[in-house]
Amino acid sequence: MTKRPIITLLTDFGLADHYVAAMKGVILGICPAATLVDISHEIKAFGIMEAAFVLGQAYPCFPAGTIHLAVVDPGVGSARRPLLLEAHGQRFVAPDNGVLTSPIDSDPRYKAREISAVSYYRQPVSNTFHGRDIFAPVAAHVAAGLPAARIGKRISDPVRLDLPTPGQKVETGVLRGHILYVDRFGNLITSFRASDAPEIIRGPFEIALENTVVQSRYEAVYSHAPKGSIFLVTGSSGYLEVSINQGNAALETGATAGSAVVLRLQAGGVLFG
Amino acid sequence: MTKRPIITLLTDFGLADHYVAAMKGVILGICPAATLVDISHEIKAFGIMEAAFVLGQAYPCFPAGTIHLAVVDPGVGSARRPLLLEAHGQRFVAPDNGVLTSPIDSDPRYKAREISAVSYYRQPVSNTFHGRDIFAPVAAHVAAGLPAARIGKRISDPVRLDLPTPGQKVETGVLRGHILYVDRFGNLITSFRASDAPEIIRGPFEIALENTVVQSRYEAVYSHAPKGSIFLVTGSSGYLEVSINQGNAALETGATAGSAVVLRLQAGGVLFG
Amino acid sequence: MTKRPIITLLTDFGLADHYVAAMKGVILGICPAATLVDISHEIKAFGIMEAAFVLGQAYPCFPAGTIHLAVVDPGVGSARRPLLLEAHGQRFVAPDNGVLTSPIDSDPRYKAREISAVSYYRQPVSNTFHGRDIFAPVAAHVAAGLPAARIGKRISDPVRLDLPTPGQKVETGVLRGHILYVDRFGNLITSFRASDAPEIIRGPFEIALENTVVQSRYEAVYSHAPKGSIFLVTGSSGYLEVSINQGNAALETGATAGSAVVLRLQAGGVLFG
Repeated sequence: MTKRPIITLLTDFGLADHYVAAMKGVILGICPAATLVDISHEIKAFGIMEAAFVLGQAYPCFPAGTIHLAVVDPGVGSARRPLLLEAHGQRFVAPDNGVLTSPIDSDPRYKAREISAVSYYRQPVSNTFHGRDIFAPVAAHVAAGLPAARIGKRISDPVRLDLPTPGQKVETGVLRGHILYVDRFGNLITSFRASDAPEIIRGPFEIALENTVVQSRYEAVYSHAPKGSIFLVTGSSGYLEVSINQGNAALETGATAGSAVVLRLQAGGVLFG
Repeated sequence: MTKRPIITLLTDFGLADHYVAAMKGVILGICPAATLVDISHEIKAFGIMEAAFVLGQAYPCFPAGTIHLAVVDPGVGSARRPLLLEAHGQRFVAPDNGVLTSPIDSDPRYKAREISAVSYYRQPVSNTFHGRDIFAPVAAHVAAGLPAARIGKRISDPVRLDLPTPGQKVETGVLRGHILYVDRFGNLITSFRASDAPEIIRGPFEIALENTVVQSRYEAVYSHAPKGSIFLVTGSSGYLEVSINQGNAALETGATAGSAVVLRLQAGGVLFG
Repeated sequence: MTKRPIITLLTDFGLADHYVAAMKGVILGICPAATLVDISHEIKAFGIMEAAFVLGQAYPCFPAGTIHLAVVDPGVGSARRPLLLEAHGQRFVAPDNGVLTSPIDSDPRYKAREISAVSYYRQPVSNTFHGRDIFAPVAAHVAAGLPAARIGKRISDPVRLDLPTPGQKVETGVLRGHILYVDRFGNLITSFRASDAPEIIRGPFEIALENTVVQSRYEAVYSHAPKGSIFLVTGSSGYLEVSINQGNAALETGATAGSAVVLRLQAGGVLFG
């Protein structure tokens, strides 16, 4: 327990309605010292996969002891379990629907508990807003010092998403993968890591994305690429990103999260693959 | 006065411009210990009714002592009064235009004051941004411990909105009401409370909304409803909501805030009404 | 150094992605006592001019000692310098691309430094997200008490934007200027100050904006103008704004940031100009 525990919030509630504020009011009523930080509330409605990606990118930037509250919950009111997860020295409170896949998969020493201590819920518990009635108050009690063991029993089978596999080299010089996420700038974050494709970095290569097939190249820096041309860059997440310098690669190519992407290494115009 | 007083902000300023930050800067200059919480800044421009609903849903989740700053103010610079309200153990600072109807109507012991202590204003006072120049500094001074009585004299006639009346049973088995609010998920929050219509909960019934008339039913939980079908659920506000499981009832029916809604209880396909 | 130093954030990152939260996590890891305030994250992608305007409007509302983190950075990863600026008793951390023009131009005693103390960066430094890896940690270290002199050497040539000049009187009774900014309400903030045009305030005058030419007048207060008519008002920034009471002047006229605007004083229907 720190003096000013950090609680982050990640939801698909948007910022127009009162839902996020309701959760924050409940938290501050229980743990007035909490520092609240929004990760995102613009996850598309019921977008568990998208939320899992965004959370996976954000939590490593937070200090030990941070509590992450992630409420993207199409199963609210059903039998899906509420979850308290300890991993990487941080805590996560969320419905057990895969939104916590990233910290679970990356920390083999994770501890997951099914939240069941109803005395820490806000009463009465609605069937439609467990963010306010279960997840927020439990996160606040944990932030205020409540030991995890008081929240519920250990479980060993938290739900995990089948995230797109890292880029695979199916034949020499050909790499097949997926778009994991599209950001505000239209950058297409691929499932490739730079280490998957060291030869790509020396390029040139062809990139195929939805209906777009173009000659492309790797650049170390956005601003080194000619304006308007499609290139590959190592993004801040460590994944390779398809970008257009001061342009929007998503609009240009029509690709979205989930789109297939293929890189074909070329030499003198001849495909390796 | 608490050590870290909570000040919430509710406006129609949006998040793109500098207006909300200007208010927060003014507050922190006067009350550096304040914890600031956004309720919403996406109220549609001049949407007093919408702001009154959102505030009414959010404030009961906040602890005693919270100060709510609500600036939806089409009359800025005119003779409309600035208001300090004490109700439910919380304080509210807003233009006197009805945005505080909910706490006023629900607490018969409310105390309202016309803000008039110009020495607590930010000088010079503009004609176009009282959020920055009057409401924010007054809220911050109150948060910092200034007694309400120093802000201005009691008034007994704060403006109240004529909110849509709760659902009315006009004939046996027929309930007529309005849509109070549409949330991000397209849930249509009706003016019906579950207690208005216990027989509906045992249904089946017909629901009529704009150009849509469909057979419907009550579900305790979103995820119990078949995907794509329109159903009724008790929302987190205590109002009945028209919803589509993992769909958008507002888009499907064309209903918006203010739309009329009629429920007709049915038995064996025969209308009661 | 204050007990709870304020750090504001201004970016073009939007609120949907994890980028802003990543910066906040880094800050709180270094300076847990920081109070974080968002100015805006909805600056259009790479909109340095827009960011410079919004920052220029917001920072004067914050108390001495505030640190403003402004990351609109099309040149990320290139040779553009990272900057620490001291002006008006506040600090600013940003890429050296003109986003700090307003505090630089308005405080002749400003001190600018090129950030070069890599030991305060987050390692490894990416080529694509200096907000997280350079600007956020440096701002946090400064907030935590690190003397500016430890960050880098003084420079005397920070980049300044060529902001639109104040309105110019090119002939008697004619004033030519630009739209500096369009806010959420569609108010068109012009480059004219009320002191540029005292005769306008006694009007009537004609206003020409894109394809719109209309008779107009000055009003002290939004709500004094007839609904639907275009008028001029002194905005909260001190600039004259073209507005429509409870309407949207930007939609009505087609004007955007950068549009030319001309005011022609009239008397009895005869142009002065």
